[in-house]
Amino acid sequence: MPRYKLTIEYDGRGFVGWQRQDNGLSVQEVIETGIHAFCGDTTRIVAAGRTDAGVHAVGQVAHADLSRAHAADTVRNALNFHVRPAAVAVVRAEPVGDDFHARFSAKRRHYLYRITDRPAPPVLHRGRVWWNPKRLDADAMAAAAAVLVGRHDFTTFRAALCQARSPVKTLDRLSVTRRGDEIHVEAAARSFLHHQVRNMVGTLRRVGMGKWSAADVEAALQARDRARGGETAPAAGLTFVSVDY
Amino acid sequence: MPRYKLTIEYDGRGFVGWQRQDNGLSVQEVIETGIHAFCGDTTRIVAAGRTDAGVHAVGQVAHADLSRAHAADTVRNALNFHVRPAAVAVVRAEPVGDDFHARFSAKRRHYLYRITDRPAPPVLHRGRVWWNPKRLDADAMAAAAAVLVGRHDFTTFRAALCQARSPVKTLDRLSVTRRGDEIHVEAAARSFLHHQVRNMVGTLRRVGMGKWSAADVEAALQARDRARGGETAPAAGLTFVSVDY
Repeated sequence: MPRYKLTIEYDGRGFVGWQRQDNGLSVQEVIETGIHAFCGDTTRIVAAGRTDAGVHAVGQVAHADLSRAHAADTVRNALNFHVRPAAVAVVRAEPVGDDFHARFSAKRRHYLYRITDRPAPPVLHRGRVWWNPKRLDADAMAAAAAVLVGRHDFTTFRAALCQARSPVKTLDRLSVTRRGDEIHVEAAARSFLHHQVRNMVGTLRRVGMGKWSAADVEAALQARDRARGGETAPAAGLTFVSVDY
Repeated sequence: MPRYKLTIEYDGRGFVGWQRQDNGLSVQEVIETGIHAFCGDTTRIVAAGRTDAGVHAVGQVAHADLSRAHAADTVRNALNFHVRPAAVAVVRAEPVGDDFHARFSAKRRHYLYRITDRPAPPVLHRGRVWWNPKRLDADAMAAAAAVLVGRHDFTTFRAALCQARSPVKTLDRLSVTRRGDEIHVEAAARSFLHHQVRNMVGTLRRVGMGKWSAADVEAALQARDRARGGETAPAAGLTFVSVDY
């Protein structure tokens, strides 16, 4: 069966997340329904990352097996036509071999977490950022983030429901930069534990507020105890940016 | 009466524009109602630019005269509390002298127009950009934009309802730059005619599509005839960025 790699953008608001669930509309269901409307195929697509409710994507990747071949642009345009009016778009569709697997072939996943740190609530970026009314110390956050980069047992930043076999992951990048009234936390790794990025951001925010030092983050990491980490940052601030294969 | 300079952000969707109108909710009404809720004053505020329905702002400026003085941060925080849940925020409040006038003291206004030029419809930036499914030639648009910079009779780019006394304006800046899948048109001038930015963008898009040359834009400008200009770009792509005083 011809396999297609789909690069997908979505606004996470209004979805229960990427994965199909009984309690509401998922991005996966929107696209699978779009595929059925396009070519009659009933298929299950596989994504690089199962984002939570409220998490956005500009470069989620999924693969879909269709019963017959179509021009890649036709797949993209037809799916974009049929998924309307859902806030989901297929940015690119590319034919790939059977050996391409959106989840297992992924070498690195990139996430962006945005925090608006100003007294006024964000209204133009509402639903896209985490609002912190007080200014955060981005330099201190960047220094503390460096503590987490590398191969570690990330149990402290792992959700209770996480299904990963091991809590040991290699974090390739965790940068913190100021962009005007926003703090951007960029994370990259081959794979992440459930809620890992949001839990790391919640912890770094404590540093930005002056409540914690980089040494406190180090101690929390070493404790291998979720109760020692910071709060889980809200889904709205998180965007799944891209996947390297 | 103590005068305050307010720097205002809003999502233009859901408003009839900046100015009070009988047919719906305006940003001006939201803020004036917020002022009344805060301190009981019934006042009319004056803005640097009366943006149209659907146009956004990150740095609109208005001045408000209150019956008594308050700490600037109190004004900002109280207004942000009372304007909820409208997508309006007072980013800054500053006490200013009676000689400050948000509209007449303005030396330069800055606007940004965003076009997404890719085959897939924008969903994360829906309502914030103009979608052009075909790639535009940003370099050609930039060259044509240069034709419009300077002091000219902008009748070709003036809305029929424009109330300005003269169609002669000095355009200080009109830059066109590519940012990934977006084209950013940045415009700056002491003042603009009604719809001038959107009409210039509609004209530049013709150049980006290869339908017009810079010489065609020059001829349209010289014609001093609205019928010779390009279409009016949609309000959604426009953001009022800032005002210099």
